[in-house]
Amino acid sequence: MTVMSPLSRRGFLTGLSVTAGGAALAGCARAAEPPPNGMAQGSDGGQAGVETRLQDAIVAFDGEHQAGIATPAQANLNLIGFTLSDGVDRAGVTRLMRSWTEDSRRLCTGEVPLGSLEPELVAAPANLTVTCGFGPSVFDAAGLEGQRPDWLKPLPEYNLDQLDPKWGQTDLVLQVCSDDPLMLSHATRHLVRSGADYARVQWMQQGFLNADGARAESETPRNLFGQVDGTVNPREGEAFDEQVWIKDDGPAWMQGSTSMVLRRINMNMDTWEMLDRKSREESMGRRLDNGAPLTGEKEFDTPDYEATDKYGLPVIDRQSHMFRAKAPDDHPEQKFLRRPYNYDIAPEPGSEQLSNSGLVFLAFQKDPVRQYDPVQRRLDEADRLNEWITHIGSAVYWVPPGTSADGRGRDAFWAQSLLEDA
Amino acid sequence: MTVMSPLSRRGFLTGLSVTAGGAALAGCARAAEPPPNGMAQGSDGGQAGVETRLQDAIVAFDGEHQAGIATPAQANLNLIGFTLSDGVDRAGVTRLMRSWTEDSRRLCTGEVPLGSLEPELVAAPANLTVTCGFGPSVFDAAGLEGQRPDWLKPLPEYNLDQLDPKWGQTDLVLQVCSDDPLMLSHATRHLVRSGADYARVQWMQQGFLNADGARAESETPRNLFGQVDGTVNPREGEAFDEQVWIKDDGPAWMQGSTSMVLRRINMNMDTWEMLDRKSREESMGRRLDNGAPLTGEKEFDTPDYEATDKYGLPVIDRQSHMFRAKAPDDHPEQKFLRRPYNYDIAPEPGSEQLSNSGLVFLAFQKDPVRQYDPVQRRLDEADRLNEWITHIGSAVYWVPPGTSADGRGRDAFWAQSLLEDA
Repeated sequence: MTVMSPLSRRGFLTGLSVTAGGAALAGCARAAEPPPNGMAQGSDGGQAGVETRLQDAIVAFDGEHQAGIATPAQANLNLIGFTLSDGVDRAGVTRLMRSWTEDSRRLCTGEVPLGSLEPELVAAPANLTVTCGFGPSVFDAAGLEGQRPDWLKPLPEYNLDQLDPKWGQTDLVLQVCSDDPLMLSHATRHLVRSGADYARVQWMQQGFLNADGARAESETPRNLFGQVDGTVNPREGEAFDEQVWIKDDGPAWMQGSTSMVLRRINMNMDTWEMLDRKSREESMGRRLDNGAPLTGEKEFDTPDYEATDKYGLPVIDRQSHMFRAKAPDDHPEQKFLRRPYNYDIAPEPGSEQLSNSGLVFLAFQKDPVRQYDPVQRRLDEADRLNEWITHIGSAVYWVPPGTSADGRGRDAFWAQSLLEDA
Repeated sequence: MTVMSPLSRRGFLTGLSVTAGGAALAGCARAAEPPPNGMAQGSDGGQAGVETRLQDAIVAFDGEHQAGIATPAQANLNLIGFTLSDGVDRAGVTRLMRSWTEDSRRLCTGEVPLGSLEPELVAAPANLTVTCGFGPSVFDAAGLEGQRPDWLKPLPEYNLDQLDPKWGQTDLVLQVCSDDPLMLSHATRHLVRSGADYARVQWMQQGFLNADGARAESETPRNLFGQVDGTVNPREGEAFDEQVWIKDDGPAWMQGSTSMVLRRINMNMDTWEMLDRKSREESMGRRLDNGAPLTGEKEFDTPDYEATDKYGLPVIDRQSHMFRAKAPDDHPEQKFLRRPYNYDIAPEPGSEQLSNSGLVFLAFQKDPVRQYDPVQRRLDEADRLNEWITHIGSAVYWVPPGTSADGRGRDAFWAQSLLEDA
């Protein structure tokens, strides 16, 4: 593996240096193009043979789609749900979007946002991305009820749901991700402050994956049950176009947008850890060591759902998570992008569980009703993992298309063409 | 800067390869020796010119002192306060210490702890350290009241304290730090579970600094006010011996131990951000850009407290944080090691502050009454920063000496010679 000396950020920003420029472009390309695979993380943009220091790693803010979706998952997440202040109307939402977009563009590229007195805290974005979503109620506040997509509504109540309202739907959401927790905190703070006249924090859901450099680049992230999580994700542009990006159908303001499903999923470590490894693998349908299907050897081997063991029983259990989650042959549209983060916070007072951990499960798809709901319905009916997991929060958001700094050919700020032209 | 290709962890553990071995030893040396400076962070052990991937970075668990004190601060902190279960006596505390020490030794070196079924989650410690402390009450539970150090008691109530009992003193504390948040979470979980028969979590205080690679190695960490924080820390062995490690005085079981002061400090970002940069610098006594004293140019320049401006006023204000915190000439013992982490969590319901952030301020010293208290007393009386900060939690712990795996010349587990011989 070739490793190059770190770039200075100044060199990066002014486009100096040939070698450095290559690495810089690799970083920049991450948001604009779906990643070559969904596994790479951190500062190398998934390009083997090139490594920059995290300090110099920038994900392009502008593009056909918002960054933070096809972007390989960074190490740290702040997902912030906001309540619009009383009386904020279309003009108010427009001002908020203009301000948040401009601030985010600057923060993500290492520039000081207008009015900020903290240049030292924004110098190294470390792959910072900011992704904005609209809850159903924003369309009402903006007098755009007639434009609300049909699927932008609460998911059905599933039988096993134990939803806590405190993790419920909000008017707006910002998904802020970075490989640096200090940058993440400062960016979050800046956006909360700059939006304070229009919206207040309702909840903040914090999550994490491996730090940059703490996992082999070829490995898919693991959750706190130790499971490899995200193997079936779309990997290249065509799959993203099929599953994630809204294109061609619908009004002009929706082109390039997507939807975000948020499910907060508690994982009961205390009971999970009573299982032996074989039972853990059977409940998932995959091996714990490398995520391979139980009928295969490697993570990306195609599962053989017909294979049986010496007793004639299916090797991959019919109630395993993998079997229940897969799209049926006659419904290939039941796929989506998983971008889950682990959470692990202090136990609630009086809780019987020793730990308070699980997933901030984020799914991106064109249409949650067609793509996500049928999968979750099957899992809710019979997924062996249900013995150890509980869905405790749920929300759905429309995620506006990407932007361009000068507004040419794209919105200059999030949802501009919805708010100004629709 | 020379950058080397990543090591395989296997290569590291078996001691293969010459270049790799050098880097590995640099990593290992971090815990055993005070760092060459207190600023380096991450996987390079403070040695310019050598860089390993975080994956391969290990801090030695055993040594004269516990790791996690002189160790350059890792990116992520879980500080867990435990309550001893009813009826746990000296035998119980001894079993808990034996179990926690053995588990921690394995986790910190990338080995699978006994009884763990999650080898995949412990493969890359990423500079994991686990540091254990005893609250005053453990000496009672163990029937060792007569041995309790005089200074192991609550700090005096300071005038401006607004202590919330939920962040108060606990029987035991574990300071778990790693540059990888997933490793941190798994190690915390493992220790909470393995100790569950003896102690339960009372609180968990999570904190962060820059990620490995997200800050120039020569920079001291910053807090969320943007201030460089930790400039006056001890840097080399002699200063650690003077300020931190208990040596020669006191019984044999105390040799090599220290004390930890925990102060949870809320920082009011909303009012702080109303200040211009000049006022921010004057309240601290240091420049925001590089942490230099207002009478100097560089961070480590000696402050000139006699310097006056053109109006004859002191350049470094007499009520600035720096002036109030400094040890008087006739009390040079009023120094200690600061190892603070930032926190930033969801706002409390009903809070007037937009953010809920501040410091998990950790100080290590031989004697909190002689070293920490007089400094905090002066700050409490008149520190301009008091307008924006509030101490909301307080605790003091005795931090047992370091260990050796075979128990030769040192305790085999934390506090062995106190629990077995005192």
